Amino acid sequence: MISPYAKRRDALRRMMQTCGLDAVLINYAANRYYLSGFELHDVQSNESAGYLVISASGEDYLATDPRYTEVALKVWPKEYLEIYRRNAPQALAKVLRKCGVRIGIETAAMNLVFFQSLQKEQKGLAFVPCNGLVEELRLFKDEEEFQALEQSFVLNHAMLDWLPNELRAGQTEREVAWLIECYFREHGASELAFPSIVAFNENAAMPHAIPTDKVLTPESLVLVDVGCRVQDYCSDQTRTFWFGDHPSTKFQETVDLVRRAQSTAMQMMKPGVLMCDVYAAARSVFEEVGEEEAFTHGLGHGVGLETHEMPSLSPHIKDVLEPGMVITVEPGLYYPDWGGVRWEYTVVVGPDGVTQL
Amino acid sequence: MISPYAKRRDALRRMMQTCGLDAVLINYAANRYYLSGFELHDVQSNESAGYLVISASGEDYLATDPRYTEVALKVWPKEYLEIYRRNAPQALAKVLRKCGVRIGIETAAMNLVFFQSLQKEQKGLAFVPCNGLVEELRLFKDEEEFQALEQSFVLNHAMLDWLPNELRAGQTEREVAWLIECYFREHGASELAFPSIVAFNENAAMPHAIPTDKVLTPESLVLVDVGCRVQDYCSDQTRTFWFGDHPSTKFQETVDLVRRAQSTAMQMMKPGVLMCDVYAAARSVFEEVGEEEAFTHGLGHGVGLETHEMPSLSPHIKDVLEPGMVITVEPGLYYPDWGGVRWEYTVVVGPDGVTQL
Repeated sequence: MISPYAKRRDALRRMMQTCGLDAVLINYAANRYYLSGFELHDVQSNESAGYLVISASGEDYLATDPRYTEVALKVWPKEYLEIYRRNAPQALAKVLRKCGVRIGIETAAMNLVFFQSLQKEQKGLAFVPCNGLVEELRLFKDEEEFQALEQSFVLNHAMLDWLPNELRAGQTEREVAWLIECYFREHGASELAFPSIVAFNENAAMPHAIPTDKVLTPESLVLVDVGCRVQDYCSDQTRTFWFGDHPSTKFQETVDLVRRAQSTAMQMMKPGVLMCDVYAAARSVFEEVGEEEAFTHGLGHGVGLETHEMPSLSPHIKDVLEPGMVITVEPGLYYPDWGGVRWEYTVVVGPDGVTQL
Repeated sequence: MISPYAKRRDALRRMMQTCGLDAVLINYAANRYYLSGFELHDVQSNESAGYLVISASGEDYLATDPRYTEVALKVWPKEYLEIYRRNAPQALAKVLRKCGVRIGIETAAMNLVFFQSLQKEQKGLAFVPCNGLVEELRLFKDEEEFQALEQSFVLNHAMLDWLPNELRAGQTEREVAWLIECYFREHGASELAFPSIVAFNENAAMPHAIPTDKVLTPESLVLVDVGCRVQDYCSDQTRTFWFGDHPSTKFQETVDLVRRAQSTAMQMMKPGVLMCDVYAAARSVFEEVGEEEAFTHGLGHGVGLETHEMPSLSPHIKDVLEPGMVITVEPGLYYPDWGGVRWEYTVVVGPDGVTQL
């Protein structure tokens, strides 16, 4: 049976043919993992765990440093493994020269110093930016990915069903975030998909709030934006609860408005619809009541191996929805002195509309 | 009282004067946080949380997107805050032009697409690579940093003292990793400094092993390489235990050898000593018994806001140790069919030698 990684490399090879590329150098971690199963994460943001060279001829290489030799041998044949020590660009140029002349590079994920080192070793190679090539494949989830995404969202929903009954006055945002993390990890997640956002009252006015020692008091707004990683795939959902029996009118009205914007967007989403139009439809719900200035971010983003990936439901994106895309729909309204409300589902685009994960 | 961030910006300004720079654009997340206290982490590896512009004149700017406006206002004056939407390079170029002409940029952390966008907006600006400028400051920890580092290492030691008694036959590597993480988080860590390495027997032959479902059996080797983040600062330590009452001769001999290499290195470490010589001294202990090929990585690295930072105790580094540096000393020996042993302390370079954190 051909592995999903090999299938994806073959799909990339077909795209390379269209672009006339002899090889592609993959240095973006999520793309590397998508095509090889080798190391989803880099060591840290300025330290790569390794590189792939995907060649038109079908001879693909994995390059890494000696710390990873044993790990690499578990997923890659020895004869196509390149172990470098100090000078990765030099080792990569050597491998690339075996594959041909026109080399695609991911310039959106390649730092300038690395690029300059690669150019120094170039000797006849022609480097061509090929940003978005692997991302284009990743836009459309395959069967293995859907299975993993479903598991990740099942756990995310289970946690969100469980959480409201665990909230107690006196808990801090940090403590609630830790409750959430423990639930995810003890029920099958390998890690968080991203740092949990837990924000009480006015802290919820910050769309990317970091949990603090702020204490939960009765009759408060609680926003949680949370994701777990299961079978390598991320989930991402947001809810805004009221802690107490007497939700304020402002809270109820804001939730109603945000959820109306969300359902308006979801109802129009189907293949062929422009992404900017989906954003505009959600925004128009806020415009009707003069609240659009409080909606300060995009409407949604792709979810998969990464929490934020293509596509983007943003005002300037003229691409259309297509079947197989997985996208969050997360309108929100933020008021610095009061708080914020965001509601986020993640949906799959099907032939006639979307279904919620 | 002047904040540590403002002190560091002033120190950077003095370095900028030496280099003749009118401003420096900071886009590397850890450097941004070191100089501002704004967002230690980017959203994800391809999505920045914001940028700093440090100017020779003393007027420093923070640029970010609308999701972070509220957070930014907590650490930065409104009149020096620049909020961009789609085009960060354009907004940054506008700010940079207010500061002068010669602009230092961190090309080691700047992707090619961003750099090209910046160049397009250049209009009279001259970009000069200034890699390592902030890292040079970060080499020498200040008082606030030492206090945080001490807290982080106190917790790391406490966990390592606690752990051996918690090991049970039947536990998986993943389960032990989760025990470790819970201990850290429930005793004051904000997060792990890096994904814990927990490896039993032959899995310990992979220096960067990811915990698996491998089960602990009596009379086994257990390697743990673990770090927590406390008050923003990382700790990093490795131990290799024997689980059982009858450690094998090979285990005992390998531990003895590794610890001998470690103490040999630590004993020679003091200001003025070449880093490559420290590496060589550790390696020579392995060479004496013909085991140097099993030592497959550098001897140590700096620790601070990041787990891996400058300096590096590696064979090709001709820099000298200086007081105030914080460095790991972590020799290891790896044998694919058997396992591996690594022992890691982190030390502070003082005037006459090193002290262990």
